[in-house]
Amino acid sequence: MIRFGRYPDRLVEQFASDAVRAALADSGIDPELITIAVASHSSQGRVAGQRVLKELALTGIPTINVENACAGGGTALHTAWMAVAGGFHDAALVFGMEKMEKGLIVGNPGEYEAAMGKTLPAKYALRARSYMQHYGATAAQLAMVSVKNHRAGALNPMAHYQNTMTLDEVLSSRPVAEPLTLLQCCPTTDGAAAVVVVSEALARQARSRPVRIVASAVTSGAYRNAGRDGISSDDDITVRAAAKAYEMAAMKPADVHVAEVHDAFTIGEILACENLGLCPRGEGGIWAEHGNTAIGGRIPVNPSGGLLSRGHPLGASGVAQVAELTWQLQGRCGERQVQGARVALAHVVGGSTPGIGSGACAVHILTT
Amino acid sequence: MIRFGRYPDRLVEQFASDAVRAALADSGIDPELITIAVASHSSQGRVAGQRVLKELALTGIPTINVENACAGGGTALHTAWMAVAGGFHDAALVFGMEKMEKGLIVGNPGEYEAAMGKTLPAKYALRARSYMQHYGATAAQLAMVSVKNHRAGALNPMAHYQNTMTLDEVLSSRPVAEPLTLLQCCPTTDGAAAVVVVSEALARQARSRPVRIVASAVTSGAYRNAGRDGISSDDDITVRAAAKAYEMAAMKPADVHVAEVHDAFTIGEILACENLGLCPRGEGGIWAEHGNTAIGGRIPVNPSGGLLSRGHPLGASGVAQVAELTWQLQGRCGERQVQGARVALAHVVGGSTPGIGSGACAVHILTT
Repeated sequence: MIRFGRYPDRLVEQFASDAVRAALADSGIDPELITIAVASHSSQGRVAGQRVLKELALTGIPTINVENACAGGGTALHTAWMAVAGGFHDAALVFGMEKMEKGLIVGNPGEYEAAMGKTLPAKYALRARSYMQHYGATAAQLAMVSVKNHRAGALNPMAHYQNTMTLDEVLSSRPVAEPLTLLQCCPTTDGAAAVVVVSEALARQARSRPVRIVASAVTSGAYRNAGRDGISSDDDITVRAAAKAYEMAAMKPADVHVAEVHDAFTIGEILACENLGLCPRGEGGIWAEHGNTAIGGRIPVNPSGGLLSRGHPLGASGVAQVAELTWQLQGRCGERQVQGARVALAHVVGGSTPGIGSGACAVHILTT
Repeated sequence: MIRFGRYPDRLVEQFASDAVRAALADSGIDPELITIAVASHSSQGRVAGQRVLKELALTGIPTINVENACAGGGTALHTAWMAVAGGFHDAALVFGMEKMEKGLIVGNPGEYEAAMGKTLPAKYALRARSYMQHYGATAAQLAMVSVKNHRAGALNPMAHYQNTMTLDEVLSSRPVAEPLTLLQCCPTTDGAAAVVVVSEALARQARSRPVRIVASAVTSGAYRNAGRDGISSDDDITVRAAAKAYEMAAMKPADVHVAEVHDAFTIGEILACENLGLCPRGEGGIWAEHGNTAIGGRIPVNPSGGLLSRGHPLGASGVAQVAELTWQLQGRCGERQVQGARVALAHVVGGSTPGIGSGACAVHILTT
């Protein structure tokens, strides 16, 4: 991946091709062997994948452009995984990219929910309020997710923001949608990331030690007209994707050593940890407060800095998670290395109104 | 599919869900058995596939939104085909949709070629000029493609335009990019189409007689800095996709009884017929003139009316082709029925500048 940040003077084709070049070099797989590409992006115009491959003269191969809001990167990996695991291709290139415009993350302009004020920050704020009331979580516990992730991001040379911040700084930053303050919302970030997916046979030719995809699961939101309690139903999409992934990997949550989860907002990470089974229901806030989800804690979550610190270029995030987890499993993460990590989980969830059926979620489990 | 046309007062979610409902009803497959959806569209906003499925309460299943310009529909079918043929799913839903804005078809606004005037009509006009000069084709031969396809479209209750037009009317319509007149360019059309893709075992449960996908091939444009002759290189993308598809099906062009090809512009159909091997190189214009590609001719091409008459809602066209060919193979096409059709080929190609590497092409072969 490239270092996430703001690239107003570069075309998405330019910085995305840098990420692809880096992934190809690191993999050591001959580019000639790659016979399919899947590109993830949300707002980069038509055939954007091909436009990137043209920069690299990697043209001619089937190229599928995938969009699934914030879950696009995971969906692209899933698509490539089907292409390789299904025996159609031996080597696939997956890349995600986004050159963000301000406000892109607010919500889908076509959706009436967003037009009526139920934008993404508002929706997550409602979840946060509901969660706090239900479980007695505090505003400080939520804010600790941001403190923790910025501490990790400060150790990640690929992160957009590489500065630590205090609990007080997070809590006293400008309110966006109470209780969420500005520093509890992911920043506006450009970026790109890429991975090479190969068959088991071809993996033996890889330069860097390959990791294994043992589970790949995608779900969409379930629409229910009634009976929604505002928290668990909203995240049913993650619960179902996780259940599929654990079943596919024949693993349970306790087997996971490190996770990258969707922390577009602090409350998002807390709910994700619970819905993925990484911590007990209702204890996500306490776990963040006690450092259980920090590097060195019981289950390190977002050692890359997550969306809050690494940044969140929509279509790129899911692929960047897999890049980070690959490096973690390879033991190449320096100061942010999770010791002994042999099983890793990546989770992205998106769509402006996941609770009402239009969301997308992807969960992958990787092993050494 | 729904009848293509202009639907200014309907949301894409509404008319696309009508198409999905029709496909499900026609297939007779229990919607509960469908475990993945692939949606094709170019400019319908984020998670548009999920937004359609929400209308149908077909939520929860993995949903992949695919974009590949005018080849998006074929790419979505290819993705679903991998999901089913690879053994990951027994039943997949594929749908394509587009609510078009004027000018959407001109070219990708992000590409400098389009900004410099090399829009799609201009590009096809250059191809037409080059073709006419090289092979001695006439303007009337090109125009005959439009006459032929409107004659077919007049027999198709799903076509946007259901009126015939004379050669003189086509030739004397407003010039768009000479030699292409207005009636040689596809109209601005909204629409949606859907197909259900199932495993062989599940196909036995289908209500309408299922057709078999015997080949599914996707390619992207090959970038070459030099040595391009302006015609054949541009369409190398179709030649390669066709070669893959014929190999996969163990067939040759002469085995095809009916084809739906990408006639966004009249010259497009002529080049497609030649590049797919359906008629000899340089004779596409003559074949159109002599009625060889008309219904009842040697190889009927675009019996639906094609993009010129049925219309071209970008992401929907590739799926609509497959709907038409399915009906043709089932013998359900009434006056536009191609007698004895047992092998059918669908071809879409897109991307604003296919010749320089950013295009996409999909070819499918279907049999009874």
